[in-house]
Amino acid sequence: MLSVEEAKKLLLERFSDYKFRVEEVDIDIIKNRILAEDIVSDINVPEFNRSTVDGYAIRASDSHGASDSIPSILDIIGEVRMGEEARLDIKSGESLYVPTGGMLPKSADAMIMIENTEKMDEETLLINKAVAVGENIVYKADDIGLGELVLERGRRISTEEIGVLAALGIRKIRVYKKPRIYTISTGDEIIDIDEKLETGKIRDINNYTLKSLITDIGGEVSGSSIIKDDYELLRSGLEEALRISDIVLISGGSSVGTRDYTHKVIESFDGDGVFVHGLSIKPGKPTIMGEGEGKLIIGLPGHPVSSIVVFNAFLKDYINSKLGTREIESSVDAVMDFNFPSSPGKTSYQMVKLELRDGRYYAEPTFGKSGMISLLSKSQGYIILEMHEEGIYKGEERRVYLL
Amino acid sequence: MLSVEEAKKLLLERFSDYKFRVEEVDIDIIKNRILAEDIVSDINVPEFNRSTVDGYAIRASDSHGASDSIPSILDIIGEVRMGEEARLDIKSGESLYVPTGGMLPKSADAMIMIENTEKMDEETLLINKAVAVGENIVYKADDIGLGELVLERGRRISTEEIGVLAALGIRKIRVYKKPRIYTISTGDEIIDIDEKLETGKIRDINNYTLKSLITDIGGEVSGSSIIKDDYELLRSGLEEALRISDIVLISGGSSVGTRDYTHKVIESFDGDGVFVHGLSIKPGKPTIMGEGEGKLIIGLPGHPVSSIVVFNAFLKDYINSKLGTREIESSVDAVMDFNFPSSPGKTSYQMVKLELRDGRYYAEPTFGKSGMISLLSKSQGYIILEMHEEGIYKGEERRVYLL
Repeated sequence: MLSVEEAKKLLLERFSDYKFRVEEVDIDIIKNRILAEDIVSDINVPEFNRSTVDGYAIRASDSHGASDSIPSILDIIGEVRMGEEARLDIKSGESLYVPTGGMLPKSADAMIMIENTEKMDEETLLINKAVAVGENIVYKADDIGLGELVLERGRRISTEEIGVLAALGIRKIRVYKKPRIYTISTGDEIIDIDEKLETGKIRDINNYTLKSLITDIGGEVSGSSIIKDDYELLRSGLEEALRISDIVLISGGSSVGTRDYTHKVIESFDGDGVFVHGLSIKPGKPTIMGEGEGKLIIGLPGHPVSSIVVFNAFLKDYINSKLGTREIESSVDAVMDFNFPSSPGKTSYQMVKLELRDGRYYAEPTFGKSGMISLLSKSQGYIILEMHEEGIYKGEERRVYLL
Repeated sequence: MLSVEEAKKLLLERFSDYKFRVEEVDIDIIKNRILAEDIVSDINVPEFNRSTVDGYAIRASDSHGASDSIPSILDIIGEVRMGEEARLDIKSGESLYVPTGGMLPKSADAMIMIENTEKMDEETLLINKAVAVGENIVYKADDIGLGELVLERGRRISTEEIGVLAALGIRKIRVYKKPRIYTISTGDEIIDIDEKLETGKIRDINNYTLKSLITDIGGEVSGSSIIKDDYELLRSGLEEALRISDIVLISGGSSVGTRDYTHKVIESFDGDGVFVHGLSIKPGKPTIMGEGEGKLIIGLPGHPVSSIVVFNAFLKDYINSKLGTREIESSVDAVMDFNFPSSPGKTSYQMVKLELRDGRYYAEPTFGKSGMISLLSKSQGYIILEMHEEGIYKGEERRVYLL
């Protein structure tokens, strides 16, 4: 039985050659996609010396010694309008009105804010403050220079990156195609949402929760099915799933019988077969991982909370590593309101609910032995106890990963 | 000029009667939607007494005193298969094989794990451990009882809630319609992505960043346009936007001229007009908020970073309050790697970049006076300095809200 770390490493080794494909996509739908190319600027930003204030473009030396009591006097020779080129240039002793964001005339080397000036008449300006060279100006290429690397391959696209691309005038970019992930729920007892709940039957939960998690991590659900505990049915279902997916997730009953089927079916395909037989993880011990037809197949536990935990423990990191990206996990630091012993030799994932008191978060465990649905509806996050840890002490602060 | 808190309060007061509508949606697309109804269970979960292990259903009293050296002996009268009703019942001295998740016979009050048993032959079972009543069993309705409130109105739907609904056999639920939000970029200098960048022109960034933020908070972009600095054009553009939206965001130049247009145009509609004229926020001071035709109109600053900050400061909380939902902000606690003075009398939002060192996050400020695009591409989060705070000291730990 491997540890979580060992299994993560093995996953990446076994699939080191597996490549996710690339596609070109419009800026309006690139949210959360991963850049598959470096973005290099083909323009200067700004393209011109730009004012950061409403005021007058001047030569800084003309303002030396200016004060309220002894203002400097300059000629106003005109104005620059927003969106227009600055056609006039200023000689020494001259000034030009420029609005915030407007272009400066060639010989101007500073902007004086309108609040520090007074118009005597349409052609005469008093300035009551000295300004330094470069004051209130953003110079051409100060922000981004032509040829500069602005966003690197592997960058996850969020609002800020979208702003950068819009500023650079880039409408389409190359991103990694969403990993195609298929979900199979196995078990004679499993029925779908719309089926009548007969005695002994259990509703399919895993297909729905896993499909939600797949979209969370930027994947695409390539398909989803419920398959009975039958070798042939499972094999042909898996064969079809493998054909149209990068990864297949099979969640099954925890009973020994079902696990045997899944194991044998994975082994029946070309490839390395099962290479992880159980994990030192709690919950989620009976997880298996394998390779068939070059694709990753994970046999998740049947218990919905266990399959959510194993998915969270592995899939996000695996996809991020393959696409060369990282992310800061959605989390909050919380004070543990409980003592909790660890499970020696296992990495434990404990679900918690959070309470905000006096600006700090406090976490309490949620347990699911009897109440799996209650657990799901009450849990807001989880903490991770590493293999070597003794446990959690009430009052200590830990990172809670948000569900 | 109002503080952020005062403006938030005023927003909710002014729009206390504004209602967002409701729609019925399929479970496959309810991710991140907000429940508009209470979900009450119309079934018991489990519907039957269920085993949590592979093992034998017995009467607990039959196992009293059992041990390795002196095992108890029971008759095996059959098995229950997954997904099937338990038709046989056990008398004292009898046992029935039940797999994990399988249904227990009526008179069984405990499950003994298969690991604690030994089959002498097909009809004889040795048990070597005493079990208590209720051991390894989830009783009917232990998880959810018929008529129990499981998910409350205002709950944000995530993976766990989807699992709950699937377990309850609920395929469609009533959720709040996504708030329809329209974005207008104003300014003679603004051009769209595909237009040729002429001297003096600036690319539209705000429409793209705001559209991204709108989907972040669960809104729907009802439309988006660039409008020149012209009263009539802005008024007719805003009129159309108001007709099809719940909220309209107008981002404009910081120059005094553009702000005047926006102010006058808002006032020209039926309604309370502008009720927030500037905010004690940095950046974002020249923000205005108003009401026209019963809808919320926000005049955001033209600077993309400022408009992102103001959006983050107000829209998420406003929408969440109107839909009666809350969320835990994605954040990390980080050590500040810098001293930073506050701006007295203002709430400051400072963008930072994060570095992970020895398991702790460290934050450094990103500044944007010259480099707005560089700022956007480097910032990963922001910290909030409240009005009363003196500043940030290097080494102190603060919450960094993730962008």
